[in-house]
Amino acid sequence: MSELYSKAETLELRRRHIGPSCKVFFAKDPIKIVRAQGQYMYDENGEKYLDCINNVAHVGHSHPDVIKAAVKQMELLNTNSRFLHDNLVQYAKRLTATLPEKLSICYFVNSGSEANDLALRLARQYRGHQDVITLDHAYHGHVSSLIDISPYKFNQLGKEGKKEFVHVAPSPDIYRGKYREDHPDPASAYADDVKKIIEDAEKNGRKIAAFIAESMQSCGGQIIPPAGYFQKVAEYVHKAGGIFIADEVQVGFGRVGKHFWGFQLQGKDFVPDIVTMGKPIGNGHPMSCVVTTREIAEAFGASGLEYFNTFGGNPVSCAIGLAVLDVIEKEDLQGNAIRVGNYLTELLNKQKEKHPLIGDVRGIGLFVGVDLVKDQQKRTPATAEAQHIIYKLKEQRILLSADGPHRNILKFKPPMCFTMEDAKLVVDQIDELLTALEEATGARTGNGRSSTAQHKRKVCFLFGVLKKGVGETCTNDFSEGIA
Amino acid sequence: MSELYSKAETLELRRRHIGPSCKVFFAKDPIKIVRAQGQYMYDENGEKYLDCINNVAHVGHSHPDVIKAAVKQMELLNTNSRFLHDNLVQYAKRLTATLPEKLSICYFVNSGSEANDLALRLARQYRGHQDVITLDHAYHGHVSSLIDISPYKFNQLGKEGKKEFVHVAPSPDIYRGKYREDHPDPASAYADDVKKIIEDAEKNGRKIAAFIAESMQSCGGQIIPPAGYFQKVAEYVHKAGGIFIADEVQVGFGRVGKHFWGFQLQGKDFVPDIVTMGKPIGNGHPMSCVVTTREIAEAFGASGLEYFNTFGGNPVSCAIGLAVLDVIEKEDLQGNAIRVGNYLTELLNKQKEKHPLIGDVRGIGLFVGVDLVKDQQKRTPATAEAQHIIYKLKEQRILLSADGPHRNILKFKPPMCFTMEDAKLVVDQIDELLTALEEATGARTGNGRSSTAQHKRKVCFLFGVLKKGVGETCTNDFSEGIA
Repeated sequence: MSELYSKAETLELRRRHIGPSCKVFFAKDPIKIVRAQGQYMYDENGEKYLDCINNVAHVGHSHPDVIKAAVKQMELLNTNSRFLHDNLVQYAKRLTATLPEKLSICYFVNSGSEANDLALRLARQYRGHQDVITLDHAYHGHVSSLIDISPYKFNQLGKEGKKEFVHVAPSPDIYRGKYREDHPDPASAYADDVKKIIEDAEKNGRKIAAFIAESMQSCGGQIIPPAGYFQKVAEYVHKAGGIFIADEVQVGFGRVGKHFWGFQLQGKDFVPDIVTMGKPIGNGHPMSCVVTTREIAEAFGASGLEYFNTFGGNPVSCAIGLAVLDVIEKEDLQGNAIRVGNYLTELLNKQKEKHPLIGDVRGIGLFVGVDLVKDQQKRTPATAEAQHIIYKLKEQRILLSADGPHRNILKFKPPMCFTMEDAKLVVDQIDELLTALEEATGARTGNGRSSTAQHKRKVCFLFGVLKKGVGETCTNDFSEGIA
Repeated sequence: MSELYSKAETLELRRRHIGPSCKVFFAKDPIKIVRAQGQYMYDENGEKYLDCINNVAHVGHSHPDVIKAAVKQMELLNTNSRFLHDNLVQYAKRLTATLPEKLSICYFVNSGSEANDLALRLARQYRGHQDVITLDHAYHGHVSSLIDISPYKFNQLGKEGKKEFVHVAPSPDIYRGKYREDHPDPASAYADDVKKIIEDAEKNGRKIAAFIAESMQSCGGQIIPPAGYFQKVAEYVHKAGGIFIADEVQVGFGRVGKHFWGFQLQGKDFVPDIVTMGKPIGNGHPMSCVVTTREIAEAFGASGLEYFNTFGGNPVSCAIGLAVLDVIEKEDLQGNAIRVGNYLTELLNKQKEKHPLIGDVRGIGLFVGVDLVKDQQKRTPATAEAQHIIYKLKEQRILLSADGPHRNILKFKPPMCFTMEDAKLVVDQIDELLTALEEATGARTGNGRSSTAQHKRKVCFLFGVLKKGVGETCTNDFSEGIA
């Protein structure tokens, strides 16, 4: 654990040698982490942080079983998938066994971005269509083709950001979206919007290759689409000759608890045509996967173009993938996600009754969002407040993030070994912080009695106090799924 | 080493669960490899293969120092680069120290494809230009944006393969290309072609974002561009407001022996604007890097778009990258590449004098190509013969590949611990195989006396004999840089 550089030197070297587009958490006072175990991370002074955000460290940081599997395989062999190897086929067999039967063909790649890009290639090859329907606020990865279909990114590029072949459907957010919890059938209403997009595109001579969506939107603000939405969308997309891509990069591998995959929340009658996986798949090891149907895989093969991925599906990655599946099962992490997730949501719902700043609590398993609002009626996003809470939690050695289009959603996606005690600790701290914030701003449960101007002034005062410690607290440090 | 499945079962599971576009080596009788060490790979029966092709296992398969570094870091921490960590900055410092001073900013990613895609994003952001000049037969990766600039791939898609923003310059191949070894100044001639492409593009109102080329073309046929070519191209591209991207994914990290990077063969007065790295960087671990200038990095940052790569630059990848640099130095692998590479080239040149099937031997360090021809004058590619040799070598437990647009170039890019004895062994075997082939076909040094028809018939007879063992030998199993 001996440090090579002081924190100041590390920062200076980072400024000198790392692209300025690569941001750190808590920009004005970043954290140097030197060790992590389970749901805890430790800085260079041995300070212990409770990690509520690293969904990549899925079965817990530095899990011994995963390391053991990696080392064992590294000592034997690490080479490409042009040689036959049992790990590759065994892992494909195990992974597809978690999915509906028709999803039987795997392509192993190295990152969620590579997975989503390949999914688009598969979709476009399938019928020769080019257009893609994506959800508003979606983020699907950092390679060129995915920036193109990520409004979360291309909206920042101004008018020219959106390409002609991209169609943006409203995010099926029943708290803040177009059709809300008071709508008689938001699933159908949101799906009808997709239908309309398809009709308009076809009128313009365009052809839909795919509809892509995270099974639950993560950067988009922890959105859980109403059940039945995906089925209807799939129906319309299939009719147009397109396919349905479920992006499980952030939410897959049992995080939702009662299912292994997020899309399964929609019901047994829904099966996507492609599922992409990433982040948690290797507990931090760079690996990823695309699973699809034989029909789509064969259409891709029919082009004659070989697909080769140098590192994808190597024996070490597959050994790690297998170990992660084993640990999820052995430690009943899905069960834990249900139990702790339910408890966390329950605690947060109690806070909602108490705090006017909490507009909505939504979640399933260990995927939970708390939508902070300045005004319960208008649902005005409480962005600065969310950032304030994140920074204060950090001072108290709790790592949480805020995301969504307004950066006002507190976002929980901790390692799956997160405990009841951890949940209690973080909610108690949030309770205290919200209480202090509400006292400072004079907010009350109900109709947000303080005026917006008053509110703004008071929060800024609070930030002024804070600034001594953390500098420019309102800076947005959080994005792209963080972990 | 106990097998989970028999080879037949492994194959069957692979057919059931792995995309048909993912090809194996020696399709009709693939190899199952269960262990590897140094330059040797072992199959399920303990048979030992000499590996002449895995440039990814750069410092040797299963290198203990690399594994040790990986384990040590895995046990401590593996998380994303939003937390400060010494490994990230230390690795960036060490890596940039191998490059000319102005190449000082790193972006860590997971694969050569991610690296080349990011290089394009950097180039396009720099001046807002969109067009890319690429070399004929080039392959730069498997994501959508790179298929677009890889003639090796898009040529297979027919007329519609080439996009409007892509311009293909002739490969600077002085053996088979437009300007050959008898040209007084092939470097200038090939560069002038690029100049012409730029002028034509500009006439059509297009703007060049980048020229991209491997420092030495690998899939393109082990092409070593004449010295001075890159300087001149860079001059023209810069004048057009574009930048020069040197793709070192296949050839970097000391493979050329006297330099650490392939582009340095062009002379000290040449510095690319972006260098992309991959395959050998982590000895098989999925990692990769883009290095560029501060100016380009700042232009990219100015868009305001964050760049976040979940696994890129994690402490484990960086620890592995550092260990690879250490081993290259400690074991003097660059020195070995010079010594063994020179010896290998010398042995092959002796074979060239002896065998009419060898048209050209070219190479530098442990990057060597043997261009097989049916006719020394016409330089007709001896494709079937190259495939025959590859398959026969495999029977003799030597792994070599054939590549290039005609698949007739025997391609050496072994782990850097390859020895004189290894070189002697493989060349002796090639000698025997060429002798047998030439006897069967009646070929003689000089003007290829047997007619093409005769030749064809005789080679086919030879393949007929071979077929008993390996089935359809003429199938092309090799592409995309193999390892």
